[in-house]
Amino acid sequence: MRYDQKISTDCKDNLRVVLVSTRNPLNIGASARAMANFGFSRLRVVNAYDVAFREARSAVGAAPLLQSAEDYSSLSDAVADCQLVVGTTSLGHRGLQHPLRRLEYGARFLRRALAQAPVALLFGSEKFGLTNEELSHCHWLMRIPTVDADLSMNLGQAVALCLYELSRDPRAVRAAPPKTIARAAAGETEQITLMLLEILRKSGYVNPVTAGSTEEKVRRLVRRLDIAGRDAPVLMGMLRQILWKVG
Amino acid sequence: MRYDQKISTDCKDNLRVVLVSTRNPLNIGASARAMANFGFSRLRVVNAYDVAFREARSAVGAAPLLQSAEDYSSLSDAVADCQLVVGTTSLGHRGLQHPLRRLEYGARFLRRALAQAPVALLFGSEKFGLTNEELSHCHWLMRIPTVDADLSMNLGQAVALCLYELSRDPRAVRAAPPKTIARAAAGETEQITLMLLEILRKSGYVNPVTAGSTEEKVRRLVRRLDIAGRDAPVLMGMLRQILWKVG
Repeated sequence: MRYDQKISTDCKDNLRVVLVSTRNPLNIGASARAMANFGFSRLRVVNAYDVAFREARSAVGAAPLLQSAEDYSSLSDAVADCQLVVGTTSLGHRGLQHPLRRLEYGARFLRRALAQAPVALLFGSEKFGLTNEELSHCHWLMRIPTVDADLSMNLGQAVALCLYELSRDPRAVRAAPPKTIARAAAGETEQITLMLLEILRKSGYVNPVTAGSTEEKVRRLVRRLDIAGRDAPVLMGMLRQILWKVG
Repeated sequence: MRYDQKISTDCKDNLRVVLVSTRNPLNIGASARAMANFGFSRLRVVNAYDVAFREARSAVGAAPLLQSAEDYSSLSDAVADCQLVVGTTSLGHRGLQHPLRRLEYGARFLRRALAQAPVALLFGSEKFGLTNEELSHCHWLMRIPTVDADLSMNLGQAVALCLYELSRDPRAVRAAPPKTIARAAAGETEQITLMLLEILRKSGYVNPVTAGSTEEKVRRLVRRLDIAGRDAPVLMGMLRQILWKVG
């Protein structure tokens, strides 16, 4: 299935992440960091508060990406080289009759478009999102499927989600074998761990110098056992008996 | 396919998002906001800086969720009622031989487990992630598929990605019909828009009172035309001619 293919580095270079009227430099920084996390590099900023943008540029971490960010005073300039312009919203569209696609679905269109030509993905201001004027530059809109349309998303998180969905590898999803045995609760598993550790200590198994790392190893070992819920009391009974014996 | 089903509200109530040793109150707030965005409600905080947690609680927005957040001084107490404990990392595991699952794949296991019993999803501190001691409480780990293991993810973004993947609806992804015609660049589309608007103005079509909204509507209309690249110069030639006539 060609639409399920992973996105290539060339395609990623075709994406322009366009932040419009961003007010908070932390959000510009967080967006740049998400881009670096998922291998995107072309950041464009339109009408950012000058101070915000300068502060974000001077922050540590995603510096190279921010320093090569392009600064525009108009949205139409910022998207002029793009064959497709897509706006993001968590609120639904507002009367301009844009096609609205859920992120899971819209990302497939984006991946396909990115294979052919530059594409702009627009994110509006923290407070108001994209204005009607800004939306009128878009071919269609992409909606992040949140449960409550009245609670907008954090900008940096919205950018991260879109880039993750673009980078997501559907082939990494495979059905797990069904498993119906109820597992012991973590509290029980921990009780078993502590009893076993106590027994090991009393038995002289634990070297005082490496006790910390032994404890971690034992805790991991017990988790790997993947104890069934009905086995937990049985095991605890055994351990209680041994503990009485070694103590 | 049962693993492709949407997650229900009941299952969401089974998830405990556990933030361990979080230092920055903004990150606790951003995590709570992402939870509210995707319909999760059970937040647990372990060893947070007291000040950080109190500041986050008093922030506006996701307040109800934060106010009902549970505060623990030990990780084992925070996960005691959970049958499955999963740690998150963007760095890979560190010597404790945990099974490591990519987010796309691990989320399916999580969805299945959430249908049966409480599950804890752990996020470590901003600076160091989960320590070996903390990791030893986990049954397995989930890795967010970033491109660069040396650049860790922002905590609030990591929480948002995991909750999005859990809430993601695979049925919302459907193949788009292939489309091979090259689209006009946004710069060309905008030129066409501006020429058309100029013609409409000179023709007395535009009411000065509603000019702004007319401009937006026309811009949208031109985008809906989805002009092919080879048609753009033709259209511009026509418009230029009309403009000469009406001017």
